[in-house]
Amino acid sequence: MSVTAAKGFTAAGIAAGIKENGNPDLALVVNTGPRRAAAGVFTSNRVKAAPVLWSEQVLKDGRLSAVVLNSGGANACTGPKGFQDTHATAEKAADVLGVGAIEVAVCSTGLIGVLLPMDKLLPGVEKAAGSLSEHGGEKAAIAIKTTDTVHKTSVVTKDGWTVGGMAKGAGMLAPGLATMLVVLTTDADLDSDALDKALRAATRTTFDRVDSDGCMSTNDTVLLLASGSAGVTPQYEEFAEAVRQVCDDLGQQLIRDAEGASKDIKVEVINAATEDDAVEVGRSIARNNLLKCAIHGEDPNWGRVLSAIGTTAAAFEPDRLNVAINGVWVCKNGGVGEDRDKVDMRFREVHIVADLAAGAETATIWTNDLTADYVHENSAYSS
Amino acid sequence: MSVTAAKGFTAAGIAAGIKENGNPDLALVVNTGPRRAAAGVFTSNRVKAAPVLWSEQVLKDGRLSAVVLNSGGANACTGPKGFQDTHATAEKAADVLGVGAIEVAVCSTGLIGVLLPMDKLLPGVEKAAGSLSEHGGEKAAIAIKTTDTVHKTSVVTKDGWTVGGMAKGAGMLAPGLATMLVVLTTDADLDSDALDKALRAATRTTFDRVDSDGCMSTNDTVLLLASGSAGVTPQYEEFAEAVRQVCDDLGQQLIRDAEGASKDIKVEVINAATEDDAVEVGRSIARNNLLKCAIHGEDPNWGRVLSAIGTTAAAFEPDRLNVAINGVWVCKNGGVGEDRDKVDMRFREVHIVADLAAGAETATIWTNDLTADYVHENSAYSS
Repeated sequence: MSVTAAKGFTAAGIAAGIKENGNPDLALVVNTGPRRAAAGVFTSNRVKAAPVLWSEQVLKDGRLSAVVLNSGGANACTGPKGFQDTHATAEKAADVLGVGAIEVAVCSTGLIGVLLPMDKLLPGVEKAAGSLSEHGGEKAAIAIKTTDTVHKTSVVTKDGWTVGGMAKGAGMLAPGLATMLVVLTTDADLDSDALDKALRAATRTTFDRVDSDGCMSTNDTVLLLASGSAGVTPQYEEFAEAVRQVCDDLGQQLIRDAEGASKDIKVEVINAATEDDAVEVGRSIARNNLLKCAIHGEDPNWGRVLSAIGTTAAAFEPDRLNVAINGVWVCKNGGVGEDRDKVDMRFREVHIVADLAAGAETATIWTNDLTADYVHENSAYSS
Repeated sequence: MSVTAAKGFTAAGIAAGIKENGNPDLALVVNTGPRRAAAGVFTSNRVKAAPVLWSEQVLKDGRLSAVVLNSGGANACTGPKGFQDTHATAEKAADVLGVGAIEVAVCSTGLIGVLLPMDKLLPGVEKAAGSLSEHGGEKAAIAIKTTDTVHKTSVVTKDGWTVGGMAKGAGMLAPGLATMLVVLTTDADLDSDALDKALRAATRTTFDRVDSDGCMSTNDTVLLLASGSAGVTPQYEEFAEAVRQVCDDLGQQLIRDAEGASKDIKVEVINAATEDDAVEVGRSIARNNLLKCAIHGEDPNWGRVLSAIGTTAAAFEPDRLNVAINGVWVCKNGGVGEDRDKVDMRFREVHIVADLAAGAETATIWTNDLTADYVHENSAYSS
């Protein structure tokens, strides 16, 4: 399944020895179909990892034959040598697959500021190419894990065509994407313009609204490859909706596996004057450390929601704000509302609704609670 | 000392019963000097507590005779009743002191969204007025503590005149101020315009650059009162510098007592194109949860510094960035620099220098690490 659910794709996931513990750390996804159309969305962080700089470049002609992904090292902040390493990785994959290097995207994830062990990575590419399979999607999804506790895949099948994908990401989830690496594939027959449009529309309301810890990665990459193998060209709207569904599903899986989290928090902003206002308020709530601690403590501390809303430039009047936590309107008209003891917070999912009473627009941001486990996991990561 | 170090002030701190544990929770500061000049700086949060709305109003004529401060309840998000309670508090103080209510500022700190127990607060104001003393500054500083582990005071004495003050604040420290309540006093003979100018200049580079956890309070207030009792009018520059020193000292005390923190982090941004760029980059670094966790783990993870810089709009080229941690330039020209194992992080203070190589401006932001203790303290606060 995963990236090989759609026809016209093979994939592999192997252990190249990049990770010292011997776990799988190299994935290869190859488009074997008649089409090689592709689109990509990348981190908006201005400090971009070498593989991001490379992949942005090679995607300019809307064509990809393969994607090499490694865990065990981000190849970010590694200077000219890091970029040469990415280039060499693409060249190696191009050689063994018989394609051009500019048809090969590269994705990396792991610690920043460390050069990749090319003596292991390059033989790994050859090894991965040797184990490519139409059933390799699952292994590829496993090989891109870092601190992920589970691998993430999703598939939507429509009338004769399919969109599938894999994702990794557990820390640094944030707007403008996350350290998420995502590869989506489809056997629908579409050109790169249609892919690009559908992918941007989908990420804008899914991955871009997953904000686990407010920290934007140097390596975020979401790729969509089309093989045309199904011989079907779906209506754009139907295709875009299938891409959105897969992105939404994968985004939810990222949130549920976020580092150290014990709660998944859905922040729904309603009655905003504009969608931008709704997103700004949602992010401000989602990034408030004090609120995230309160949710961890199962404390429906709505005052921290209001204080987060108050830091934004969105249109609202303080004395018209309403806040519900798990269905109980604990804040009405900017003041005390229903009894906060009625709020049941025992379950993993917490639903916060912030009513700005300023219009008709809405947006939903997903985040996690802030826990001692998050601190522990991220205190020790590079040690 | 504290607010009574300057001549022409009395103060008191008592237990009014607002806090259920019986600790001191009400402070009163009274200007007895010939002058009653005053200035104030307040939270830029748009959700403002009732005492902030009140105090902003009464300060419009640049004149204050007294300040009532309570801990044990923020009186924020409490609607019209909350504002009436603040008004009644000022009226009560005005009555017992024989001044007008519009000469009385009110400050509150504690949980948001809960009405104050006025049946305890109003008798408390009377009790505090009965124990006013020229030596009451210390007790006043103790009575405004919430989760503070120590009370904070500072005094600068110059040639015949003095600036002194007290502060509370340990959580919610952030830009646009913090939940910090600060009262400064001086016996220098200055009008409210000079006070206002000196106070704004001082807070801009001190309290405004203390950003413990990125969360802006609904209640932040910094007041400066002048009694004129010294009969001396200092040069403005000298006075402004004394105010800055007291603010700087109190700001440092806030950082050192931040909730759950084990490290005080000085983020110094150098060679920025503009001071605004330097502040934006400093804040972005100071608010990066992943970096704050790494510092907690004594891990000189400079990649997280770069990834935080990359989210800003400041002028810089990624491949010209340099980062030092505790004096070791671990990142040079956007890549790996000196050996990170040389970085000694055993001590409480950590010094991060981010060199943008884009100009000549600089700014320093102070923050803390992110710890399991922070999570624990803020998970349980309102329970």
